[in-house]
Amino acid sequence: MRQTKVFLNESEIPRQWYNIMADMPTPMSPPLHPGTGKPLAAEDMAAIFPMNLIEQEMSPDRWIDIPEEVLEKYMLWRPSPLYRAYNLEKILDAPVKIYYKHEGVSPAGSHKPNTAVAQAYYNKEFGIKKISTETGAGQWGSALSMACNMFGLECRVFMVRVSYDQKPYRRLMMQTWGGTCFPSPSEETETGRKVLAEHPDSPGSLGIAISEAIEDAVGNGDARYSLGSVLNHVLLHQTIIGLEAQKQLEKVGDYPDVVIGCAGGGSNFAGLALPFARDKIHGKDISIIAAEPSSCPTLTMAPFGYDFGDLAMSTPLLAMYSLGHDFVPAPIHAGGLRYHGMAPIISHLVKENIIEPRAYHQLETFEAGVQWARSEAFIPAPETNHAIASVIQEANRAKEEGKEKVILFNWSGHGLVDLASYDAYLTGKLFDYPLPLEEIERAKKVLGQYPKP
Amino acid sequence: MRQTKVFLNESEIPRQWYNIMADMPTPMSPPLHPGTGKPLAAEDMAAIFPMNLIEQEMSPDRWIDIPEEVLEKYMLWRPSPLYRAYNLEKILDAPVKIYYKHEGVSPAGSHKPNTAVAQAYYNKEFGIKKISTETGAGQWGSALSMACNMFGLECRVFMVRVSYDQKPYRRLMMQTWGGTCFPSPSEETETGRKVLAEHPDSPGSLGIAISEAIEDAVGNGDARYSLGSVLNHVLLHQTIIGLEAQKQLEKVGDYPDVVIGCAGGGSNFAGLALPFARDKIHGKDISIIAAEPSSCPTLTMAPFGYDFGDLAMSTPLLAMYSLGHDFVPAPIHAGGLRYHGMAPIISHLVKENIIEPRAYHQLETFEAGVQWARSEAFIPAPETNHAIASVIQEANRAKEEGKEKVILFNWSGHGLVDLASYDAYLTGKLFDYPLPLEEIERAKKVLGQYPKP
Repeated sequence: MRQTKVFLNESEIPRQWYNIMADMPTPMSPPLHPGTGKPLAAEDMAAIFPMNLIEQEMSPDRWIDIPEEVLEKYMLWRPSPLYRAYNLEKILDAPVKIYYKHEGVSPAGSHKPNTAVAQAYYNKEFGIKKISTETGAGQWGSALSMACNMFGLECRVFMVRVSYDQKPYRRLMMQTWGGTCFPSPSEETETGRKVLAEHPDSPGSLGIAISEAIEDAVGNGDARYSLGSVLNHVLLHQTIIGLEAQKQLEKVGDYPDVVIGCAGGGSNFAGLALPFARDKIHGKDISIIAAEPSSCPTLTMAPFGYDFGDLAMSTPLLAMYSLGHDFVPAPIHAGGLRYHGMAPIISHLVKENIIEPRAYHQLETFEAGVQWARSEAFIPAPETNHAIASVIQEANRAKEEGKEKVILFNWSGHGLVDLASYDAYLTGKLFDYPLPLEEIERAKKVLGQYPKP
Repeated sequence: MRQTKVFLNESEIPRQWYNIMADMPTPMSPPLHPGTGKPLAAEDMAAIFPMNLIEQEMSPDRWIDIPEEVLEKYMLWRPSPLYRAYNLEKILDAPVKIYYKHEGVSPAGSHKPNTAVAQAYYNKEFGIKKISTETGAGQWGSALSMACNMFGLECRVFMVRVSYDQKPYRRLMMQTWGGTCFPSPSEETETGRKVLAEHPDSPGSLGIAISEAIEDAVGNGDARYSLGSVLNHVLLHQTIIGLEAQKQLEKVGDYPDVVIGCAGGGSNFAGLALPFARDKIHGKDISIIAAEPSSCPTLTMAPFGYDFGDLAMSTPLLAMYSLGHDFVPAPIHAGGLRYHGMAPIISHLVKENIIEPRAYHQLETFEAGVQWARSEAFIPAPETNHAIASVIQEANRAKEEGKEKVILFNWSGHGLVDLASYDAYLTGKLFDYPLPLEEIERAKKVLGQYPKP
């Protein structure tokens, strides 16, 4: 009988994360201190992150050991299975093999725990007792709540109020794992109180929530802030996905021609793609595709330059593709892809033509997601549907060209708590949101205010 | 490093289901035709089920081959992992090893697809084009919708209206997989129209929904009805769980002293327990515990006798423990355990002292579930929490007695679409519902109307 899943034994799990900084074809532009305009020093971040994570953020080492305590927690769901999508292959009738890493098997249902567990561990090791963070739809907040609970840390999550009210399920996951979730703007911080004084009914925004989380952590000696994407150390922790996939594909004697992931801040995409990007840098002939939403087309349409990572301008200046830190993405259901910027590592690799970006409209992503659910059974998250749309596109191209291809993609999470979006799709209440071209001019002006990379 | 999960390779999956009818210590009382009071013949069920499933329902064969097409679908999530619950063990500080089968890894999130896939396959093989069923909270309806989609069958689910309105997520799963879900009472059947004429605002009931589903299927040549628990062939299909567990435990050199599952209609419990019950019948010294809700204590308090499987009295008379077919269980959140009767096979094995029943109150089950989520991370379904409460009780007993024990239980499904019940628990809005003793007298009167087993 054909083999549907490739497992690794627990003893075969990779023992190190992969840091692509050691293999970058050209130097990256460093993060800048927004006050001085000078490259950021480790001390500049000491109030926000624990020093052991700052060291990882700036590390040039190719391989970084995964601590035993982190591996032990990973074993609750890792190594994640590598699947072959036979049923979709049959429907597409294209000369392709489709493999996917099933990251939906984690307790939180997505790839986010890969870094949440690591970050909670390093904070605990550094003596931190409390972590604050923000969350939009709740994928990150729920993963961090779970991870903090594992290491006995307090977790305080500032969740954009409109999501807090409309999407209670991930908030309830946080609470079940013992995290505290505040609707943001909240009464917990000066920022929150100020917004509420002016707009008592404010629906909140990710920008406000980030400001609240940072304020909540900074200046509180045993507290730190945590971010679920964008930064180097976050992408580093996710590389366990691609490293496992390489071992699994080796077991079945395959290597991908095309590697695909959806990209918002960049972490799940990077997790699968970076170990393969290394191979490409060293000469492998493969396509690595980042699938993003057409309504928030950071990599396909936005300018490259220095910009802030958040609306509140509380981060360093990061060299990246950005629609401008005050860009407000359209209300697509793939909340995890509604981000104005992109991880500097991913941005750099796109600029260097190692990674190829593609954009997909909301309706075609849900069409792909329903086709997936009705062939491969697992219901994907709306973010994941972008990767699936790209897989289907690549398969159809291979058919047109008559070329055999091995496609590998990251099935970043399940959509069981996002089912309202499928309901909206199936009842004709979803729409596409092409980006008005004026937004690009606007983004160029925003980035024009800061130093050139 | 310690091993958290025991996997089987796909090539190691059991190729046959186990039928305990071949090992029963004493003969079971057969189902009776309600009209004639005589043992049911295969033809009596021909309008309701396809003949190949009726043959399985009545088969005396110990082993029944799993068709290749079913195995192929099983491979989407099977063999399911066997986990060791190290973190809970540490917290309980008892001399026990705790193993669990993680059935939440299926696309529908529970054990239900094990029989849904098999039933859809056999219906298709028999030439059926359309399956009707009823569902309460939606676990069964969603699993059958998924399975029907796999084999190109139409699926029509009658969902109790109050659940249809209050618990939209599993209805949305059904629709995403292409099933049609009607709030019951519906306009689709004479039964439904009659109820609606008298009570336009009827919240519905499982009894009405069963009647609607049967009416919808019967008399329609290429349609049949499907049931997700209670019957012999349903329990048979679930034995894949216990058969896998036996192979997995063998790999780590263990055998359970205690086997535990939650029991409503009996299917997930049977799935894990029956292969071990076989060993017990043949002399093994083990405890096999069925954990049920105190508010619906079929096995621990109800009389044994012939009763109908449904409120509408449309099933044969089944020999079982029953609170009376018109019993209305308290509104506990473990919807899958709110059933007045119990699978005849399980009932018989309880009568024969092979299986030991225990009852648990709602609050202690959620306390157990939250303790689980905060130690083993995966959030369990409210039904599963009954098994966990029993595991904790057994571990504490082992500690008191100073006896080393290996405990194995069935983690029947995750609670990600049941999180509202955790919210109610964490905010003090859940209650216990001890059964009033009058209900037992009432049940005895109901069963007294029918033949004695």
